[in-house]
Amino acid sequence: MSHEIAVIEGDGIGREVVPAAIEVLEALEVDFEFVEGEAGDAVREATGEALPAETYEQVADADATLFGAAGETAADVILPLREAVDSFVNVRPAKAYPGVDALRPETDVVFLRENTEGVYAGHEDRLSDDLSTLTRVVTSSASRELAEYACEFVEDGRGPAGDPEEGFTVAHKSNVMRETDGRFREAVLAVAEERGVDADEELMDAFATKLPLDPSQYGVVVCPNLAGDVLSDLAAGLVGGLGLLPSANVGHDNALFEPVHGTAPDIAGEGIANPTAAVLSAAMLLEYLGHVEEGTRVRTAVESVLSEGPRTGDLGGDATTEAVTAAIVDRL
Amino acid sequence: MSHEIAVIEGDGIGREVVPAAIEVLEALEVDFEFVEGEAGDAVREATGEALPAETYEQVADADATLFGAAGETAADVILPLREAVDSFVNVRPAKAYPGVDALRPETDVVFLRENTEGVYAGHEDRLSDDLSTLTRVVTSSASRELAEYACEFVEDGRGPAGDPEEGFTVAHKSNVMRETDGRFREAVLAVAEERGVDADEELMDAFATKLPLDPSQYGVVVCPNLAGDVLSDLAAGLVGGLGLLPSANVGHDNALFEPVHGTAPDIAGEGIANPTAAVLSAAMLLEYLGHVEEGTRVRTAVESVLSEGPRTGDLGGDATTEAVTAAIVDRL
Ligand SMILES: CC(C)[C@H](C(=O)O)[C@@H](O)C(=O)O
Ligand SMILES: CC(C)[C@H](C(=O)O)[C@@H](O)C(=O)O
Repeated sequence: MSHEIAVIEGDGIGREVVPAAIEVLEALEVDFEFVEGEAGDAVREATGEALPAETYEQVADADATLFGAAGETAADVILPLREAVDSFVNVRPAKAYPGVDALRPETDVVFLRENTEGVYAGHEDRLSDDLSTLTRVVTSSASRELAEYACEFVEDGRGPAGDPEEGFTVAHKSNVMRETDGRFREAVLAVAEERGVDADEELMDAFATKLPLDPSQYGVVVCPNLAGDVLSDLAAGLVGGLGLLPSANVGHDNALFEPVHGTAPDIAGEGIANPTAAVLSAAMLLEYLGHVEEGTRVRTAVESVLSEGPRTGDLGGDATTEAVTAAIVDRL
Repeated sequence: MSHEIAVIEGDGIGREVVPAAIEVLEALEVDFEFVEGEAGDAVREATGEALPAETYEQVADADATLFGAAGETAADVILPLREAVDSFVNVRPAKAYPGVDALRPETDVVFLRENTEGVYAGHEDRLSDDLSTLTRVVTSSASRELAEYACEFVEDGRGPAGDPEEGFTVAHKSNVMRETDGRFREAVLAVAEERGVDADEELMDAFATKLPLDPSQYGVVVCPNLAGDVLSDLAAGLVGGLGLLPSANVGHDNALFEPVHGTAPDIAGEGIANPTAAVLSAAMLLEYLGHVEEGTRVRTAVESVLSEGPRTGDLGGDATTEAVTAAIVDRL
C-alpha cells in the first residue's frame, strides 16, 4: 500500500531539513508518494497568500504531511494546517541524547498539548482605543479527547518510561483560571480515573520551576494549548535547543509532522542546518502510518549519529546537513 | 518618620519566614510600626473568609506590607491584596548567588510583570455544559504604565547590569494573540522609543527555550501577567529554587512585598524554612521606602550568609531558620 505524503518545505532551513528527511524516508522499503506544496513567506511574497488553498487541500487529502518551517507567516500557515488535519493533540517529545551537550541530560518528557482551543481559539476584539480582549475557550469535550489520547498513549507504553504504570501529569493554572482551566483539569482527571490511569497535577508556574530543577520526575505531561507551547519549549532549552525536537499534530485520520524549530534565518541557505528534528519527525510519521519497525530504525540511526558524529554546528561540529543525512542513511 | 507596615504571615512557612524578616528589619535603625493582620487557609477555616475585610483595610492603609504565603487560598488572598495596594507591576528579581548550587550561576534577571490584567482580569463564564470562556483583557494604558516603570527602572540603573544602556526585553505571544498581545507589545515598545530606552523583544515560547540555554543575554524582562508568572518561575529553577526569590507588588503610593515561594507544607512548622526570600523581600521594602542604604546592608548580609553559611536544608545545609536569621542580623 502506498502512502500519499504532502511535503511542505516552507521557508529558511525548512528547505534544507525537509529534503534531508525525505532522503531518509526514501532509503526505506516503504512505498511513499510525495506531493509537494508551498506555504510561507516566499509564497506570500509571490502570491499574496501564505497558505494557498491548493496546499491546504493537499494536506487535508494526504495520508500525512511533513512540514518544515515558515518565517513571519508561521502562525498563518501552521494554525490552519493543524486544522486541515483535524488535529486535536500536538505530541512533543523532548529528550536529551548521549553525545549532545544538554543542561539536563536526564530529560525525557513527552508533552501532549491540546491543539484546538485555549487562547488559540483566537476570538479577539478591539473594544475601544484603549482596550482589547481575547476569548479563551475551553471545552470538556476537547479536554476529554486529549485525555483519552493521553491514556492510550500511556497504556500503550509510549511514554518515556515505556510503562503503563507511569501515568501522566496534567499542568494547568486552575487556581487563577478557575472556570476554564478548572474545566480542563477536571475533565482530564476524570478520564484518567475512568480508565484507571495514574494522573497527578502541577500548576504550570510550579512546573516551570521544577522541570529545570529535576526533569526526571516527569514523563508524559498533558497541557492546555499555550501552556504546552511554552513548557515544551522550556524543555527544549534543557536538552540542548530546538534543533533536536520533532513533533506530531495528530488528528482523527490525518496528521502533520514538523520539527519544533523555526526557519533559522541566520544560517538558512548555507547547507549547515541540523536535520535531526525533521528526520525524527519523519520517524514519528512512519510510526503513525504503522511502520513502527522502520521508525525505530530511523531513531536508532539518528541516535548513533548524534553520539558518534558527524555533527552540525549547533551541536559543536562542522558537518553539513548533507553529511549528517548521509551518515543517518548509512546507518539505517 | 515612622512607617506603618502591615504584616501578614499567612500559612505554613509564612509563619516562620515573616518573623525572620521582621527580626532583620528591627535590627536596623529605621522606625517601623508593625500592624499584624490575618489571611489564608487558617483564618478561612476559623471564620469562613480567607481575606477578612479588616486585613484588606490594614494593607490598603499601611505604607507597605510584608506578606508571607497562603495555602489553598493563595489566589483568594494575594490577588485582592495586589489590588489593595493598587499594584500595577510585580517586580521579580531572579539572581543566582555565589555559594548556592544553581543550574545557571550566571542568571541575573529582573522580571517586570504586568499586575492587573491579562487572564488575571478574571472574567470567566460557563456558557454551556461543555464550554467555558475566559476574557483576557489588555489595555494600552496598563501596558504603557508598566513600560514607563520599566524605563525608569532601567534609567535609574536598577537593572542587573546597573547600566541605563542595558534597556529591556519584552516577552509576549503576539504572533498568536495578535490583538491583545499585539496591543501590549506596541504600547511597551512605543514608550521605550519615546523615552529613548533600548528595547528588544522575544516570543514567550522562544524566551522559555533561550533563558536556560543562555541567561546572560537577558537583564530586565517586561511581560504580560501570566507570562511573567511562568517565566519568572522558570528563572527560579535556574538559580536553585524558589527559596531565594523575593518580589514586590508596586502601586502608586503603596506596595506589598512577598517571597515568591508558597507555604511549603512538607516542612512547615519545623523551623527549618529558608528565610532568604522573605528577608530579601524586606530589603526591597526598605528600598521602596527610601532606605536604600539599609536595603543594601540587608542584601550584603544575606549574600555573605549564602556564601559562607549557615544554610538551611534546601541549600544543602542543616541550619534552622533561627540560626540563619541570627547570622544575617549578625552581619548587618
Ligand atoms: C508559530 C506558532 C503559531 C506556533 C504555536 O504557538 O503553536 C509555534 O510556536 C509552535 O509551537 O509550533
Ligand atoms: C497564587 C497565584 C494566584 C499567584 C499568581 O499566579 O500570581 C502566584 O503564582 C504568584 O506568582 O504569586
